Amino acid sequence: MTQIDQVLANIDANQSDALQRLFELMRIPSVSTDPAFAPECEKAATWLANELTGIGFTASVRPTDGRPMVLGHIKAKRRDVPHVLFYGHYDVQPADPLDLWTTPPFEPVLAELPTGKQIVGRGSADDKGQLMTFVEACRAFHANGGVPCDITVLFEGEEETGSPSLPAFIAANKAELKADLMMVCDTNMWNRTTPAITTMLRGLVLDEVVIRAASRDLHSGMFGGAAINPIRVLGKIIAGLHDADGRVTLPGFYDGVAELPPEIAEQWHNLDFEGDEFLGDVGLSVPAGEKGRSVLEMIWSRPTCDVNGIIGGYTAKGSKTVLPAEASAKFSFRLVGSQNPDKIVESFRAYVKANLPSDCKVEFLPHGASAALQLPFNSEVLRRARRALTAEWGKEPVLAASGGSIPIVGAFKRDLNMDSLMVGYGLDEDRIHSPNEKYELSSFHKGARSWARILSELVAI
Amino acid sequence: MTQIDQVLANIDANQSDALQRLFELMRIPSVSTDPAFAPECEKAATWLANELTGIGFTASVRPTDGRPMVLGHIKAKRRDVPHVLFYGHYDVQPADPLDLWTTPPFEPVLAELPTGKQIVGRGSADDKGQLMTFVEACRAFHANGGVPCDITVLFEGEEETGSPSLPAFIAANKAELKADLMMVCDTNMWNRTTPAITTMLRGLVLDEVVIRAASRDLHSGMFGGAAINPIRVLGKIIAGLHDADGRVTLPGFYDGVAELPPEIAEQWHNLDFEGDEFLGDVGLSVPAGEKGRSVLEMIWSRPTCDVNGIIGGYTAKGSKTVLPAEASAKFSFRLVGSQNPDKIVESFRAYVKANLPSDCKVEFLPHGASAALQLPFNSEVLRRARRALTAEWGKEPVLAASGGSIPIVGAFKRDLNMDSLMVGYGLDEDRIHSPNEKYELSSFHKGARSWARILSELVAI
Repeated sequence: MTQIDQVLANIDANQSDALQRLFELMRIPSVSTDPAFAPECEKAATWLANELTGIGFTASVRPTDGRPMVLGHIKAKRRDVPHVLFYGHYDVQPADPLDLWTTPPFEPVLAELPTGKQIVGRGSADDKGQLMTFVEACRAFHANGGVPCDITVLFEGEEETGSPSLPAFIAANKAELKADLMMVCDTNMWNRTTPAITTMLRGLVLDEVVIRAASRDLHSGMFGGAAINPIRVLGKIIAGLHDADGRVTLPGFYDGVAELPPEIAEQWHNLDFEGDEFLGDVGLSVPAGEKGRSVLEMIWSRPTCDVNGIIGGYTAKGSKTVLPAEASAKFSFRLVGSQNPDKIVESFRAYVKANLPSDCKVEFLPHGASAALQLPFNSEVLRRARRALTAEWGKEPVLAASGGSIPIVGAFKRDLNMDSLMVGYGLDEDRIHSPNEKYELSSFHKGARSWARILSELVAI
Repeated sequence: MTQIDQVLANIDANQSDALQRLFELMRIPSVSTDPAFAPECEKAATWLANELTGIGFTASVRPTDGRPMVLGHIKAKRRDVPHVLFYGHYDVQPADPLDLWTTPPFEPVLAELPTGKQIVGRGSADDKGQLMTFVEACRAFHANGGVPCDITVLFEGEEETGSPSLPAFIAANKAELKADLMMVCDTNMWNRTTPAITTMLRGLVLDEVVIRAASRDLHSGMFGGAAINPIRVLGKIIAGLHDADGRVTLPGFYDGVAELPPEIAEQWHNLDFEGDEFLGDVGLSVPAGEKGRSVLEMIWSRPTCDVNGIIGGYTAKGSKTVLPAEASAKFSFRLVGSQNPDKIVESFRAYVKANLPSDCKVEFLPHGASAALQLPFNSEVLRRARRALTAEWGKEPVLAASGGSIPIVGAFKRDLNMDSLMVGYGLDEDRIHSPNEKYELSSFHKGARSWARILSELVAI
């Protein structure tokens, strides 16, 4: 039996224990955006550091100005092997709206469906289940002759809030983080039987706008008609951001947005992707983006402008005849190609200011900004990863794009000039960021096997 | 000493006790819009019924489908006197935002300012302080020979939520409620030394719009660009409701909106009202209504369309990359002249539906609708009330309008054909519906004296 066969057999034999370990991690409500959950993030970080230590890593929890990082190192016995940096994040999205969950978000369960078993709970797919596939692969190597590559593991606690502490952490720990290749497990499979390697990622700009008008809330009878209403100001700002064809109206917004190379456009066109079905699964039927684009382009290779939240005035039950003093909205932009995040922010803020009545003040609250990423299609790493995944799944992986951003990939490219191999075992249907988030048990199991094969393949001669 | 002199002296002598009674009532947080406070509304109603019983009324708490009514009757010794129905409301607006109050909203205090003493707390001016001026006038008559007119008192508990139970209550109690004249104490003085009689009231239509799109909240990376965003749909709806001149764009909206009669326009023009100052007091400087209209017209005699609340998506701290399944906004329309509330609702809903993308559903939640009111300028009642107020304040009352609506005035006009004499002692600066609501102690004191004089004047020969 070769080492990889032993490792795969070991992963198979330890499935039940692996699942219990994942459940333990999922029971920690490590929500990063709400400061009230900061102690839970600490707890998750400590749990992970202990896990890594238990399987031979030198691991520690590293404080930051925000949520801590977990950093671990382990070396292969051979000296002429590549050094990989594996990245995952232990923080999760808030669980709200709570009333739409069928089981409590932080009490994971294994649900049995006709399609297979599912791990249900917040963080199952994004990203605790995914990152544990790699930890389980490392555990199996550790028990069977040791890891084949030098491995650094970095688990972040602020991925869901735009990774504010990451740049400083990278700057302060360059030598410790630098590796030949980064591996990221925060992406999806093409479908439940077809793996995928993500080669394009959209960037993300998050900017909150707070509009303030009168010095206090006003009675809409006494002041209605004469006093400006910040909700109406926001409404106009939102309405003016898109033209009738669904294009974003900000000057310079499409600078750096290129058309797909013909061969990629062709591959995407031939994928068994049905836009109707994709939208139909969530109760929609009409693509809402730019006219003349396919649904796949809209979510993979075209930029967006959206509003992720809005609030102002009286929002409880019933009515209140109030003109609010303040209203706010959280705007976001998904970026592609070489769109410059700073220039997008600048153009957006100039637009808001140009549409601000003289009686209003505006405050901008930036919540993160990262550019889009594109990985070379012809690298040796990609060739080996495709071979490993094909061996595990019996099918060539799709070379996909992702509409969601992974800020760390951009940060490591920018600061340490490292490329990333993005392989993940989530499915589009996993309801990440939504109630009843789940992760297929098969993703969890074969995901660990896939990482084992990829690590092994990287050192094959 | 005539009876009225005795009554006025009695009011003066009992100021301290009167204030303690008002404080007791204000300590009951009788918020009507939030079902959690229903028991407090019951408590306020019972308190008022007991007060009335204590000063000779036959009074009772009358249940409705919502908050209860308080109804009391007392008769004059003479038989040939008018019968008046006095209306007030014991319900109050929610106290939020709580952090902007300098003292707890339901723990009333007497604040001493250079301009005089102020009663501070939720409901001080709207409407508990105002209604107690009438109760105190009745108490003084009761202790000094009896009330001069037959009096029915009606205290409602749903004024702040559009009076949903009122029509059925009137229909079921017509004989008991019918009187020669209604008196309403929910309006303001012209300034702190000049009384006012309100002769025009704007109507109010409240309609909440809930837009639903996808069957669940979506990840803005996975779906952004392809999935429709209900916040953006709402933004467009809000933006399209006004044209560049500040006019409401709904078809037929201005049907029934007349220009002011020249003599009223002239009177208003000559009032010492400074639009700049009115807006400046709340931190604004630019009138936000229709171009070419004075601020007084905007708030008194022109209709409006506004948004009193909006919510959708993630609204807590930080960011969440979500496309919400739902977003909602609370719209309101202030009506004037003979604008028809039903037609306004119809036109608004048709507009919303016409601007609704095919992938969205809309739900409308009506929160009340009442037409505007205008009272005859040449009635005998108005002549006598002006005489009484001139005697108390040493100045002719201003014949004013009010931008806020008083649904009961419309209901009693419609269902029992009763006109209303609207006299109140609030000031524009009283911060009703806002944090730190207050009522001048002089309003409370001279208000009671004014009602005593008006009641006495109504039976003068």
